[in-house]
Amino acid sequence: AIIVYRLPWTWKCSKLLMKFIHAGLNTIAMILAIVSMVAVFEFHNAKNIPNMYSLHSWIGLTAVIFYSLQLFLGFAVFLLPFAPAHLRVALMPIHVYSGLTIFATVIATALMGITEKLIFALKNPAYSASPPEATLVNCLGLLLVIFGSLILWMASRPHWKRPPAENAKILRPTGVTPEGTEVESTMTNSGNADKSDLRSNTEAARKQNIKFDEAGQRSTM
Amino acid sequence: AIIVYRLPWTWKCSKLLMKFIHAGLNTIAMILAIVSMVAVFEFHNAKNIPNMYSLHSWIGLTAVIFYSLQLFLGFAVFLLPFAPAHLRVALMPIHVYSGLTIFATVIATALMGITEKLIFALKNPAYSASPPEATLVNCLGLLLVIFGSLILWMASRPHWKRPPAENAKILRPTGVTPEGTEVESTMTNSGNADKSDLRSNTEAARKQNIKFDEAGQRSTM
Repeated sequence: AIIVYRLPWTWKCSKLLMKFIHAGLNTIAMILAIVSMVAVFEFHNAKNIPNMYSLHSWIGLTAVIFYSLQLFLGFAVFLLPFAPAHLRVALMPIHVYSGLTIFATVIATALMGITEKLIFALKNPAYSASPPEATLVNCLGLLLVIFGSLILWMASRPHWKRPPAENAKILRPTGVTPEGTEVESTMTNSGNADKSDLRSNTEAARKQNIKFDEAGQRSTM
Repeated sequence: AIIVYRLPWTWKCSKLLMKFIHAGLNTIAMILAIVSMVAVFEFHNAKNIPNMYSLHSWIGLTAVIFYSLQLFLGFAVFLLPFAPAHLRVALMPIHVYSGLTIFATVIATALMGITEKLIFALKNPAYSASPPEATLVNCLGLLLVIFGSLILWMASRPHWKRPPAENAKILRPTGVTPEGTEVESTMTNSGNADKSDLRSNTEAARKQNIKFDEAGQRSTM
């Protein structure tokens, strides 16, 4: 769900469809998270294991609570057509940061859960004797870290961001520079202006157009 | 060390001094990491506990290896005056990404270590009985997650980035737009040009100046 906006094949989709894919995948993940939490509590109760005693459970539950908040706020602000553009602009960096932080926290929670499970489940031979199961699951844990690193890499590369729509130049004629509009990017913060290839007036006008195109796309939903 | 470049009081320092603080703090952290790894191996050997069997140890050692690589490459490329500007520009996003990813991985490793230690050390009453020690250490683990989240927030806010030097306008007269220079920011990627407030020619020229000032700062070290 995180990298939906970074996949070239989705760039052909409308922004609204991309949002639906993003929201849909996250909703499925949320449902799976709730199902698995119910399963854990039922397993604990059936085996007379106390609930919510471990750091794994504390951080995991915190992550799920923040994830549901993130999903609810994302739905209310970015998917429903009621939120004003300036609110979307203000909340998008927080939405992106929260999403990536929750993702990293969930991976850390999974690693703690794997550690717990290996210690509790492997008794003869014990985890410390490095039986094949231990090595296999350790490798899975390492793969989880690699997976998380790759997703964070993809999500944090600005040039992997979805390019602005093709109709940028149609929406507004080149050279128009309306004043008083404070719409900025939703996916990445501003402040990087000094980093770009600012060569000429035309270039600046082109980017101004792109900016307004993005605002236009946003305001359509 | 990560947020040295985000602290307003360091903005008064020269870029070189900031680099020395960043490299110095990271070197101290590396020394502490090596000391603690030696301590762990000696503790394991003294107690006849096998080394390197757990997921915690695998991921922790991986993180330390990448950290030493990061430190060595950072020293060779960004601190020593031999690397050409284009190499620094190309490597800086990777350096930033690696640093933050290693930081997050180290926090995950610490959480796994805490989980292990609580399971092994708390026997009577057991970890699952939630004795006060367990609650205390769980809280410390949660604080570690909050700490990590705050650092990642500070490090990923573009507007918390050190502002370009005051002498931007002195270095190059306004309106000069030299061609063929491809120097970009080292701290954040380009590609966000469309996000900025591009209002006028003057604005574009000012940013061009800032860009060259950044390149100038980099080339001085």
